[in-house]
Amino acid sequence: MTQTLMPDVNRAGCPSRVILEHVTSRWGVLVLAALLERSYRFSELRRHVDGVSEKMLAQTLQALERDGFVLRDAQPVIPPRVDYSLTPLGEEAANLVAGLARWVEHKVPDVQAARAAYDGTKV
Amino acid sequence: MTQTLMPDVNRAGCPSRVILEHVTSRWGVLVLAALLERSYRFSELRRHVDGVSEKMLAQTLQALERDGFVLRDAQPVIPPRVDYSLTPLGEEAANLVAGLARWVEHKVPDVQAARAAYDGTKV
Repeated sequence: MTQTLMPDVNRAGCPSRVILEHVTSRWGVLVLAALLERSYRFSELRRHVDGVSEKMLAQTLQALERDGFVLRDAQPVIPPRVDYSLTPLGEEAANLVAGLARWVEHKVPDVQAARAAYDGTKV
Repeated sequence: MTQTLMPDVNRAGCPSRVILEHVTSRWGVLVLAALLERSYRFSELRRHVDGVSEKMLAQTLQALERDGFVLRDAQPVIPPRVDYSLTPLGEEAANLVAGLARWVEHKVPDVQAARAAYDGTKV
């Protein structure tokens, strides 16, 4: 008897968990949200996502490209030019994570108030 | 002249970035999504979120509690009983991350197909 397991992020070995980690990784979130606006060249993207190292950005983009979220377009020009953009699948992911990022930006005051209250009870 | 900066997750020092990292952390996503269904005791939550260590779950819950997303309710009973649930703010965050988790679960086949294609071009 064959049992087909439905993907479940709560199961340690489930492939969905690794995909979720790529999409929600520190830099994955920011890269997807940036590419939702427009396509970027590597160096532009590195400036836009403040604080990311060249190595981490390259790793993040490669994981997102392999998962089918990001399209890497290397132009045959000198000097080399590589553009990154979202696939239709990546656009769906980016809409979800960008929604989360915007929500967090709006809720900073609420979180700061909660932290002050929490820290106050611990003194 | 005072300049008030709007929160921007793309700025390295912005407080929104740390909040985003709590919400999208490996275990933060899974804990928020679980608590969207119902409140959990610590040990139940640890079983539900397969693979999380006691230490990491405690750290995750504490960060989410301090940010105002999770309510910790320690009952004065013997043996001690601690229930975790979402605040209204946490429920908003949880809805967003659970939506992302569900989306990823549904897209596992698409991502696996993309990976096979990607890996094929690299042979």
